[in-house]
Amino acid sequence: METTALAAGFDWQLAALFLIASVAAGLTGVLFKPGAWYESLVKPDWRPRNWMFPVAWTTIYILSALAATRVAVLPGNAFAMGFWAMQIALNTLWTPVFFGARRMGLSVLVMGLLCAAVLGMIVTFWTLDFWASVMLLPYALWLSLAAPLNWRVWRDNPGAGGTAA
Amino acid sequence: METTALAAGFDWQLAALFLIASVAAGLTGVLFKPGAWYESLVKPDWRPRNWMFPVAWTTIYILSALAATRVAVLPGNAFAMGFWAMQIALNTLWTPVFFGARRMGLSVLVMGLLCAAVLGMIVTFWTLDFWASVMLLPYALWLSLAAPLNWRVWRDNPGAGGTAA
Repeated sequence: METTALAAGFDWQLAALFLIASVAAGLTGVLFKPGAWYESLVKPDWRPRNWMFPVAWTTIYILSALAATRVAVLPGNAFAMGFWAMQIALNTLWTPVFFGARRMGLSVLVMGLLCAAVLGMIVTFWTLDFWASVMLLPYALWLSLAAPLNWRVWRDNPGAGGTAA
Repeated sequence: METTALAAGFDWQLAALFLIASVAAGLTGVLFKPGAWYESLVKPDWRPRNWMFPVAWTTIYILSALAATRVAVLPGNAFAMGFWAMQIALNTLWTPVFFGARRMGLSVLVMGLLCAAVLGMIVTFWTLDFWASVMLLPYALWLSLAAPLNWRVWRDNPGAGGTAA
């Protein structure tokens, strides 16, 4: 039974749904890229390099989709699935808000809600499946950089937001 | 037990997660509005009027979030929750793709996947909770207009897409 849940029973059709949702979120990063506008913003020295963002997000999307697949078949997962849905919607929203509409203040609000959703997801996953919650650690680690960066860029660039082009 | 599941036991904290996800999706429509560019496109006569879109989407978001809340507490809901997560990510993605990046061909692809997710959601919800699947009918009805409209606008406006501004 344990083997079924952990290996042989891993449902790739189910995983496909969470992976497609994650590809949808990740596609925003392909459509709305950092360009001259982003380069012109004042940013803190400790920020991750630009190439790290797609690497980090690809890792995060795959691991969190596989974690959701494990948890989706467990009883008592209502809040865990609710937090997963909440984070993927907020995650899909963030990039168009920041890079598309250039609404930096609103992007900080979206980021705050995203952090809350990921925290809720880690706690609820933890109670259901230890390894699923471990698979969310890259997400938590990356947000611990991305959220302060988002806040700093907003604070340090007053008037730089507004409509694109 | 039945009363608990259907009325007294309705969990508003759980509903809040699905409602926040839906607000995130709906916010894209506030950020990326139809403007001069959209008005200039060739559109079929049978299209819904502009004022109907926010009315329809508000109805759809509320009903589908409440339907998800009902289904989230039921056993055997893994695919139902997977389809819900998939549709909210694709739904959040569509507006930035169409109105933000003006990638009309890609928006048709996103719309096709969204229709598949909603169809999967209706079928899986149906097997778990009849009324939850009924609550998804406005979504299906609206997409039966929105998807052909999306396709027609793409087909009838070659070269009108591309980057905003």
